[in-house]
Amino acid sequence: MRRAVRDIPAYPFTPIDVPIKLDQNENPADFPAELKARAAEKLLALPWNRYPDLHAETLRAAVARYEGWAEAGVVVTPGSNVLIKLLTELAGIGQTVVTSDPTFSVYTLEAQMLGAELVQVPLCDDFSLDVPATQAALDAHTPGLLYVTQPHAPTAHSDSPQAVRALVQYADARGWVTVIDEAYYQYAGRDYRDLVRECPNALSLRTFSKAWGLAGVRAGYLLASPQLAAQVQKLVSAFNLNFLTQAVLETALEHPEYMERSVREAVAERERVLAALSTHPTCQALPSQTNFFLLRTPDAEGAYRHLLARGIVVRRQDKLRGLQGCLRVAIGTPPENDALIAAVRELR
Amino acid sequence: MRRAVRDIPAYPFTPIDVPIKLDQNENPADFPAELKARAAEKLLALPWNRYPDLHAETLRAAVARYEGWAEAGVVVTPGSNVLIKLLTELAGIGQTVVTSDPTFSVYTLEAQMLGAELVQVPLCDDFSLDVPATQAALDAHTPGLLYVTQPHAPTAHSDSPQAVRALVQYADARGWVTVIDEAYYQYAGRDYRDLVRECPNALSLRTFSKAWGLAGVRAGYLLASPQLAAQVQKLVSAFNLNFLTQAVLETALEHPEYMERSVREAVAERERVLAALSTHPTCQALPSQTNFFLLRTPDAEGAYRHLLARGIVVRRQDKLRGLQGCLRVAIGTPPENDALIAAVRELR
Repeated sequence: MRRAVRDIPAYPFTPIDVPIKLDQNENPADFPAELKARAAEKLLALPWNRYPDLHAETLRAAVARYEGWAEAGVVVTPGSNVLIKLLTELAGIGQTVVTSDPTFSVYTLEAQMLGAELVQVPLCDDFSLDVPATQAALDAHTPGLLYVTQPHAPTAHSDSPQAVRALVQYADARGWVTVIDEAYYQYAGRDYRDLVRECPNALSLRTFSKAWGLAGVRAGYLLASPQLAAQVQKLVSAFNLNFLTQAVLETALEHPEYMERSVREAVAERERVLAALSTHPTCQALPSQTNFFLLRTPDAEGAYRHLLARGIVVRRQDKLRGLQGCLRVAIGTPPENDALIAAVRELR
Repeated sequence: MRRAVRDIPAYPFTPIDVPIKLDQNENPADFPAELKARAAEKLLALPWNRYPDLHAETLRAAVARYEGWAEAGVVVTPGSNVLIKLLTELAGIGQTVVTSDPTFSVYTLEAQMLGAELVQVPLCDDFSLDVPATQAALDAHTPGLLYVTQPHAPTAHSDSPQAVRALVQYADARGWVTVIDEAYYQYAGRDYRDLVRECPNALSLRTFSKAWGLAGVRAGYLLASPQLAAQVQKLVSAFNLNFLTQAVLETALEHPEYMERSVREAVAERERVLAALSTHPTCQALPSQTNFFLLRTPDAEGAYRHLLARGIVVRRQDKLRGLQGCLRVAIGTPPENDALIAAVRELR
């Protein structure tokens, strides 16, 4: 057994059973019942004893149609965290992974377990990417994998398009495989597909777990040049996506209006919650371009326990660099958000 | 991008649309309709917008109950080929992977792409493992990952329990993570769970794709000591199994009698096909302990094309070491097997 795996602790997540789950940035709305029924119908008609498509060809074509992207430039896996593993395999093993600090823990866990040198560049105090410092980190290492998360997690901050463009072009020109993780782009109303088209070593990483409300189905995908996608595809385990995933996603992609409506609702609710908490005497709800926000409290542990006592679970982020006192709170349904606002107002 | 990935060709599989599919060693019987309906019912009642269990805890408990194994010693992923990748990550990267020649191509592809030194020990002429030569290969390298496939693929041969035990104990004592791949064990009527219990570095790899007839659902698992399983589990992507997989497998495990019946039928059909072809003037149907067999022909390409013209697709294996002229043929339904027998009888 490799020491790099033995030395790493397991992925830190403990499910907590309370009425209001705001700890996983899920979409609070279930997949519409009539679409569920349609997907189940497709499902029952299929032979379950037969292997699915080798590389989910039909589904990749459906994603490509929806995205207006070349089918050969699409790779789909059971969750975008699988793609993070495969991209680390592609460009990280024995090389370098560059990301920000704080960042999404799956980037750093995979880098460490798979034997990449991990370089984390601190975010600026306003949560923006430190572009010059990141460029300097790229210059100081043999090319590998760079993550640019837009909007960023866990800060919910969007960088200026100029900054993102400057960093991605710089990395691309130097041969870094550059992941623009756009898990939450729908909530920001902006994406970087044009930049990916320009940069042969860059790709956009997307998910069905957030705006599409299909976290339980497990699917993520990337958009890249056909050349880059073909290399990632080699690393995808054959027959990786079961036919349910394929049936549900094809159904979802035929009805994007449900997703767009759910994004509009989440954005409206986010702004309502942030406004309601803006006059709080001790807690600060930070601006957000996603379906979650950071709540900076004077005492993260006390605030976390108080919310839990009110039946609300959120995620502590207060141990992360620059996030002292911070809880990460997902936007829920309107009644859930009302309960959250009321519970936060009790905090002192 | 790492050269090891760029240099590897993509996984070689081209789907061919003909009436009789005997090329993927699938179970010819679909999952029973009443169990499909029960699984679909479970499915519709679940919230699709919520992440599933972090590590499929409920399903792992169901597998553990079925297997009479400690729950903490079970790891489940979307297909056992995902476990092959994770085991290569655990013990192969920068180390050594030892397997036979010929062997299952996923072992060697993952080893090569992830940067392991790959050592292949030729099988003996009768397809048995060369135990002394494999032990010598282990002695010549720093420990990593060893595959012992029982029954073997693609030869369909079972080694003597004495040989398997000698090799696994030897590897285990020297710190090699030893995978006993038992994808087809139900068709051999023998397994190595007792050996795995004795050897802390050994594990059994199993699948729902063959005897259980659920290739489309994508699920494989391993049985190991809790200590070894915990290390593999770290490498499993969080929330890796969607709720369909969990609902279907829980339903299947409550009704193992359908699987047992399907194994009995496949074994009876296998013996019938082998007997029917035993007097063939030019082709030799080799003995099998699995749900497929090797057909040694004077001209593999000609035989392959002839079967295809009769609406039957099989898998060519004639380029593999020691398998000159060989096709790999899955056992189908009785009418499919009749068609196969008739078509093979036309070969000269």
